[in-house]
Amino acid sequence: MENNKPFLEVLQGRKTDRIPFWFMRQAGRYLPEYRELRSRKNGFLDMAFDSGAACEITLQPIRRFGMDAAIIFSDILVIPYALGQRLEFLEGEGPKLERLRTGADIAKLNPGLMERKLSPVYEAIAKVSSKLDDKTALIGFAGAPWTVATYMVEGGGSKDFIAVKKMAYSDPQTFAALIDLLVESTAHYLIRQVEAGAEALQIFDSWSGVLDSDEFRKWVIQPTKQIVDLVRDSYPQIPIIGFPKGAGYNYMAYAEGTGVNVLGLDSQVPTKWAARVLQPLKPVQGNLDPIALLAGGDAMKLAAERIIADLSSGPFVFNLGHGIHKDTPVEHVEQLVKMIRS
Amino acid sequence: MENNKPFLEVLQGRKTDRIPFWFMRQAGRYLPEYRELRSRKNGFLDMAFDSGAACEITLQPIRRFGMDAAIIFSDILVIPYALGQRLEFLEGEGPKLERLRTGADIAKLNPGLMERKLSPVYEAIAKVSSKLDDKTALIGFAGAPWTVATYMVEGGGSKDFIAVKKMAYSDPQTFAALIDLLVESTAHYLIRQVEAGAEALQIFDSWSGVLDSDEFRKWVIQPTKQIVDLVRDSYPQIPIIGFPKGAGYNYMAYAEGTGVNVLGLDSQVPTKWAARVLQPLKPVQGNLDPIALLAGGDAMKLAAERIIADLSSGPFVFNLGHGIHKDTPVEHVEQLVKMIRS
Repeated sequence: MENNKPFLEVLQGRKTDRIPFWFMRQAGRYLPEYRELRSRKNGFLDMAFDSGAACEITLQPIRRFGMDAAIIFSDILVIPYALGQRLEFLEGEGPKLERLRTGADIAKLNPGLMERKLSPVYEAIAKVSSKLDDKTALIGFAGAPWTVATYMVEGGGSKDFIAVKKMAYSDPQTFAALIDLLVESTAHYLIRQVEAGAEALQIFDSWSGVLDSDEFRKWVIQPTKQIVDLVRDSYPQIPIIGFPKGAGYNYMAYAEGTGVNVLGLDSQVPTKWAARVLQPLKPVQGNLDPIALLAGGDAMKLAAERIIADLSSGPFVFNLGHGIHKDTPVEHVEQLVKMIRS
Repeated sequence: MENNKPFLEVLQGRKTDRIPFWFMRQAGRYLPEYRELRSRKNGFLDMAFDSGAACEITLQPIRRFGMDAAIIFSDILVIPYALGQRLEFLEGEGPKLERLRTGADIAKLNPGLMERKLSPVYEAIAKVSSKLDDKTALIGFAGAPWTVATYMVEGGGSKDFIAVKKMAYSDPQTFAALIDLLVESTAHYLIRQVEAGAEALQIFDSWSGVLDSDEFRKWVIQPTKQIVDLVRDSYPQIPIIGFPKGAGYNYMAYAEGTGVNVLGLDSQVPTKWAARVLQPLKPVQGNLDPIALLAGGDAMKLAAERIIADLSSGPFVFNLGHGIHKDTPVEHVEQLVKMIRS
């Protein structure tokens, strides 16, 4: 694939003169222009499913900071929503879903509605794609089946993941049916994003860290590999970034077992270890602690310098290890961008 | 050190005929006899600081299941409490502390009160010690400075650890003063527990997983090493188990840098990797997912069998990877104990 977008160059395993960067949750509440737009809309879903608003929000950080990649403004929970599960985003409370507890609950989910329900996402991608300059790439994304399933079974965020783990441990057939449905629908969703104009994909497995190594293989590695294979059947060249947040010592198995092209690193991953062990296998992306960015000053500077020093001799995309926190001062982001660019 | 307690044998690096075991939070709400006693007391601190009640609660699981070690019934937050920080345990809400935010807040903490405030813990240890048979060991414990500091600065549990990380990043001198105070008082507390009759110690670093590798070295490894050194100055032979929950790839640095004798493994640590890399260095303890125990049945059986198969050829203490969940059926614990013993 020939192109002159530094982000995509790195994802193909090539080194570039400048370090490409973007930040997870770069379009979000820390930006005054986002808060302004949000104040005129009726909650998160109203923004995500209005293709004009989603396009505008996606572009806001690019205008301000000139990231090397935009990521479409959406959420990993649009898949349960598109499958017919009730979903609300309550101000200050996080997502609430109607809980799935039985095989009958899962059987009621209906992939037939997906195309219509998700069409605003594809429209937004097409709009963003037409507006980006020829240096800036567009990322599509989805949640990994395990992480999306935790929300679907727990009915929202969780502290100890009892309901979903109990289903996985006690009724693995029923849980596998849910995971299989998520594999199919997520692969389809990612393929449609590529058709609409996404030039790279990221798979977020935010809760991969709560599983032991056997369960990690079953519910993280295998489903992710199936998705990667399905997407590659349609788009063999599309770069796919895997982000198994908190995977710890299971990271290596993920790198070897899933077939993703690029490894997203959470903040915990030691960069010297990543440079020695992971980067020779695949390009890496990460991993500044978002709270170092929120704190700013010397701590942010030293942490970012260490990351750049350790990882920039191989193919590397600078990013955070998790999403930007809403209380992050915009000036800290400006300072970080200056550092990366210099 | 000569003894015939299998748990202590393993902690000294020797193999035993039977696999010693105990479970984190083995004295707790899943036991009807604990709930009965609790119903007659006025909250958690009222139990922990009544040496008779604490002794009784410590012994309850031993009577029922015959673990190879009892762990004194207490909490990692008795240290902030003994230093004069206001602490409450609210039913169903977890601990609430008055928040420390400034150097002045930290300067107000007073180690002079510790001995008197913690004396019921030492009394409880002496009581338990006099009642255990000659096969069962007694474990004392404390929280590691980083983890205890998170509660002291956040004012309770946290999701993103913003306040404590912000202090560590933006004002490392002030934060170091807090950590230093915790090193001194925790080492003293552990030494006093040994004097009272504890035969092994465990240091819980429940939140070590939220730090990047540099911060992990500063706030987890260094303070833990200082505590281990201070305790060893008084009791060179006392076995110390380090439990850096969620440490992921920083685990190896912890094993090498802290000087603990034994490595407590959380459920995420792959047992095959631990057998190959960690166990040749130090005995290991762990790591069944408590939710597998809660779920019971085949999943629990298979996971426990895998752990035993992978780790029992070296020095190994069977345990969970985190505390027993309050909703765990007692029969599942019985079944697990039978498995370990057979």
